[in-house]
Amino acid sequence: MFQKIAILGTGLLGASILRASRERNLANRIAAWSRRKATRDFCAGQAWCDSVHESPEDCVRGADLVIACVPVDKIFSVLAAAAPGLQAGVIISDVGSTKAGVCRAACAALPAEATFIGSHPMAGLEKSGPEAAVPDLFAGRICFVTPPTVAVDSPALKKLCRFWSELGMQVVNVSPEEHDAIVARTSHLPHFAACVLAAVLRGHPERWSVLAGPGLRDTTRVAGGDPDMWRAIAIENRTEILAAFDEFQREFSHLRQCIADQEVDALHATLSLARDWRSSLGELSAQGSDFGACGAA
Amino acid sequence: MFQKIAILGTGLLGASILRASRERNLANRIAAWSRRKATRDFCAGQAWCDSVHESPEDCVRGADLVIACVPVDKIFSVLAAAAPGLQAGVIISDVGSTKAGVCRAACAALPAEATFIGSHPMAGLEKSGPEAAVPDLFAGRICFVTPPTVAVDSPALKKLCRFWSELGMQVVNVSPEEHDAIVARTSHLPHFAACVLAAVLRGHPERWSVLAGPGLRDTTRVAGGDPDMWRAIAIENRTEILAAFDEFQREFSHLRQCIADQEVDALHATLSLARDWRSSLGELSAQGSDFGACGAA
Repeated sequence: MFQKIAILGTGLLGASILRASRERNLANRIAAWSRRKATRDFCAGQAWCDSVHESPEDCVRGADLVIACVPVDKIFSVLAAAAPGLQAGVIISDVGSTKAGVCRAACAALPAEATFIGSHPMAGLEKSGPEAAVPDLFAGRICFVTPPTVAVDSPALKKLCRFWSELGMQVVNVSPEEHDAIVARTSHLPHFAACVLAAVLRGHPERWSVLAGPGLRDTTRVAGGDPDMWRAIAIENRTEILAAFDEFQREFSHLRQCIADQEVDALHATLSLARDWRSSLGELSAQGSDFGACGAA
Repeated sequence: MFQKIAILGTGLLGASILRASRERNLANRIAAWSRRKATRDFCAGQAWCDSVHESPEDCVRGADLVIACVPVDKIFSVLAAAAPGLQAGVIISDVGSTKAGVCRAACAALPAEATFIGSHPMAGLEKSGPEAAVPDLFAGRICFVTPPTVAVDSPALKKLCRFWSELGMQVVNVSPEEHDAIVARTSHLPHFAACVLAAVLRGHPERWSVLAGPGLRDTTRVAGGDPDMWRAIAIENRTEILAAFDEFQREFSHLRQCIADQEVDALHATLSLARDWRSSLGELSAQGSDFGACGAA
């Protein structure tokens, strides 16, 4: 499928892409770069990695697919470092959790002849680092691919979508802006709400948390995420996140008022709508795959 | 252990107590009352039920343990209806999710010679009704037992705690007021936060919810709870819930400000504390059982 895939950054996601690409035989050669020497040494000993490089520029030479697997606030510097080594016609993507700012940064960092199309494979584990990498990390999960204009039906877009499909992902095309609006509500807001719940619980005796049932555990599970990564996401996507906070604030204040004023009918309506939405979430996911056209379809 | 156990209300919890009591041979006779005829007919055909009654008063005759398994806003009327049938020395409890108001209502409904001690077994399923009842519903879960004064070490308290222990539960004694303060933060606030998230998502295209990862599913799972039950909880425990809402509001506003002002250090500190709290939650639950003395211990 590709002559050479270059992975810039070999954390959990980057190393899992390397492993999955090798297992599915998606490239003749697979190259990796990591900022840390210990990580480079680890990767150099693996069958899923043909070469390990000390600079992004060396790593990307001759590659027809480059994927930057670094935190969103590092995309610009890594791609700028790689730029002199890029060959014409190369497809470049990333795995960042936010997209509008990343796409702007990538375009600023790259020469005009490189085609950057952002990706966001929604996959992960509680663990991190290349040692935790597994080739089936992506199977059955959703991957956003965000071309600047969704209507564009370029060969590069098709090929990138096909790449993620080959890793077992369900590929969805949206604009970078719509992506950021979606994940602000479906991922970032729930994460920060969980952190706020954690802050409330921290203000009370530890014994109280111990006495909680599985509801609190489920509701706050995502608060266990990496603070570095989530800080970068909060800053990168702050416009949409703040809009989502305002939506949350309106609904929160409404619910508070219903309870304070004992408006039992309005309270019941709010709880019923929440229950119905949650039930439909289960059904929607079960029925699966009939959303958004994909460039690869 | 008991001559006769009378269960008033045979939903999921009541019927599961019946089944578990029979399986563990905790009483010579087991009697049930349900408001609905269809439910009485169902229970009458079950091996775990010796008799089914049309009134609470008939059901509790000769019982030395009575457990009201009805919603918190029905406790008063059910116990008031049972009162004329109660024998001297009977222990009476309930399974409600709030305790201070329930204990007041029970004391108002009952004659002085009956001993009421509130219980809150933290167990449940997504399903409801006696058909869903399972005898091991309580195994390994926490049960609050809330005597008016925790220091009291009465035989009735010991016996009630032993009853829940026999069902496999970890029994914790706190006052009704502390119970309500605890669950307002560990159960009710997370539930309402999940409902608020649901309301935010409902304001956007359904497609957005479909594209969510498992984080949103976990964070909002509890929003699938029964609106009738949760409305009753919200009204019953509104003082503590509103206090918990105010604590949430403070932390939410702080986090919003950190993001809006790009205060990266304060933001990182908040996210790190949330991560640490969430990690310790796992450890605390794993290490298990060294909290609060129990009357049965």
